[in-house]
Amino acid sequence: MDFSSIYASYQTQLNQVEQILHERSIAQHEVLSHAGQQLIDAGGKRLRPLFALICGASSHQNTDAAPRVTKVAAALELIHMATLVHDDVIDNAELRRGRPTVRSEFGNLAAMYTGDFLFARSIQLLAEIDDPLVHRQMSLGMVRMCQGEVEQIRDFYNWNQSIRTYLKRIQRKTALLISLSCSLGAHVAGATYADVNVLRQFGHYTGMAFQIIDDVLDFSGSEQVVGKPVGGDLRQGNITLPALLAARDKKLGNRLSKLIVKGMPEEAAEEAIELIVESSALDLARQLADTYLHKALSVLRQVSVRRTQEELAILTHFVAERAF
Amino acid sequence: MDFSSIYASYQTQLNQVEQILHERSIAQHEVLSHAGQQLIDAGGKRLRPLFALICGASSHQNTDAAPRVTKVAAALELIHMATLVHDDVIDNAELRRGRPTVRSEFGNLAAMYTGDFLFARSIQLLAEIDDPLVHRQMSLGMVRMCQGEVEQIRDFYNWNQSIRTYLKRIQRKTALLISLSCSLGAHVAGATYADVNVLRQFGHYTGMAFQIIDDVLDFSGSEQVVGKPVGGDLRQGNITLPALLAARDKKLGNRLSKLIVKGMPEEAAEEAIELIVESSALDLARQLADTYLHKALSVLRQVSVRRTQEELAILTHFVAERAF
Repeated sequence: MDFSSIYASYQTQLNQVEQILHERSIAQHEVLSHAGQQLIDAGGKRLRPLFALICGASSHQNTDAAPRVTKVAAALELIHMATLVHDDVIDNAELRRGRPTVRSEFGNLAAMYTGDFLFARSIQLLAEIDDPLVHRQMSLGMVRMCQGEVEQIRDFYNWNQSIRTYLKRIQRKTALLISLSCSLGAHVAGATYADVNVLRQFGHYTGMAFQIIDDVLDFSGSEQVVGKPVGGDLRQGNITLPALLAARDKKLGNRLSKLIVKGMPEEAAEEAIELIVESSALDLARQLADTYLHKALSVLRQVSVRRTQEELAILTHFVAERAF
Repeated sequence: MDFSSIYASYQTQLNQVEQILHERSIAQHEVLSHAGQQLIDAGGKRLRPLFALICGASSHQNTDAAPRVTKVAAALELIHMATLVHDDVIDNAELRRGRPTVRSEFGNLAAMYTGDFLFARSIQLLAEIDDPLVHRQMSLGMVRMCQGEVEQIRDFYNWNQSIRTYLKRIQRKTALLISLSCSLGAHVAGATYADVNVLRQFGHYTGMAFQIIDDVLDFSGSEQVVGKPVGGDLRQGNITLPALLAARDKKLGNRLSKLIVKGMPEEAAEEAIELIVESSALDLARQLADTYLHKALSVLRQVSVRRTQEELAILTHFVAERAF
């Protein structure tokens, strides 16, 4: 079984998720329709819904659980879409420093409110599930995600941050939502407490690995494949794991912290990116991602359903091997 | 009994609301702490919590209802604060055209995520109340509020919009949250369905009047009292009721639509504002606000609790007479 065969076996449910995303994010509104359609078209891998659906299938306790799993899956993707839209506002801010497409101020405002709208739509969808635990965990998750985003802004251009700070930030920014996808998908399907707990840990480790690989790809990926210029994070002052690992070398750290400052010239960013790429930092970061992936596969063995184990293991390998 | 005596009689509960706002919006986060503290300090009239507390006091069905009413009151204010923070991002965009305080791009991003954070905090607070109806109505309310905000952006600089379009927009943008303050405050306190329904209508009419008066004050208020330059809405392309009423005069409408366009010079805005102020539009708008206030007072008579009637009537008069 490979990645595409998993997609195939969840195709019906993924189509239902897509249908919900379409109904909830588009259709009723001219302006939102445009932004929503763009997001749907951009598509993405729908990884969060897939995690939720696989974990939701781990239990057959409750035969009418399927619609609830689908709703949770769609709600998680709506939140993910909302954060993407708000992240666009950040990216737009950076577009002024030489990236090709520039949106008007109007575009940024629309992006902000479109994000709010998708956020609200997600809450509305969750309200239909009507499960206090889902509400509590999702709302706490959202609070932490927002804290993660604010922390990211706070830590812009800060070379004194520790790797621990970085890990805490990506835990909130990324791992949490993937973890919730796994645990809530299983929970609303009626999985055992033990399984829900293990899947939550699995999602956390996989999510951490996912973001670290993302941050490595930002340096190592080609512009054509990743879809944005190399070193985009660093260009906007977002100091990720590869940069922090490179900066552990005192001399290199000194140079980097002089290059990457607010309002730096383009050449400074280019030099810093080159220094990081040429160092051992990308390999070291990749090793940390692999450690998380091993932890994910290790806890996965505790899941009581064999099929869930197998399918999630394949997803984990997909995360490990992705180059985009 | 006057406005300040109402504040006095709800002081204990308002302090509890303030305490929740403080705990939930500040404290845990350096960046958020600054933004949150600013908002708390700016204070405002806490009208939404006050509406919720008064309506919550309309029923004594349930003696342990008080903490739930306080939570709903705080959750509503957190949502209001979140929208204020996001509105600031809009205002910032406008600051470039000559208003005094200008925030950096960093400030805008922080504002966006602070808004998201407050939004999430509100949901989290509501999750503690654990009442499906509250979840459903609040999430639907948020969806509509976001639509209202997006509609406002869509309708910027559009002189072909009808007064009906304007009314629908402010219903979503403002009246809805005030209406929810009244109905949910009463609902979680265990008020009868009839009272909840009447209070919902009362909140709607009062909210409509409140926003119309706000839009009139934007033209007629003095800069010192209102705290922003006269005609601020029009300067950013937001065409409100006074402008639409003035534009019903064909010649004036023609002139206004030529003056207020995207990228207009300062003198064009000044001339348009003067034309609107000199027309009968402010009086006419004020009359429409009064119509809504009369409707509010009229439905209020159907509320079963005399004290609630009296207190809300005073709040309504406060809304009618406010000049800031």
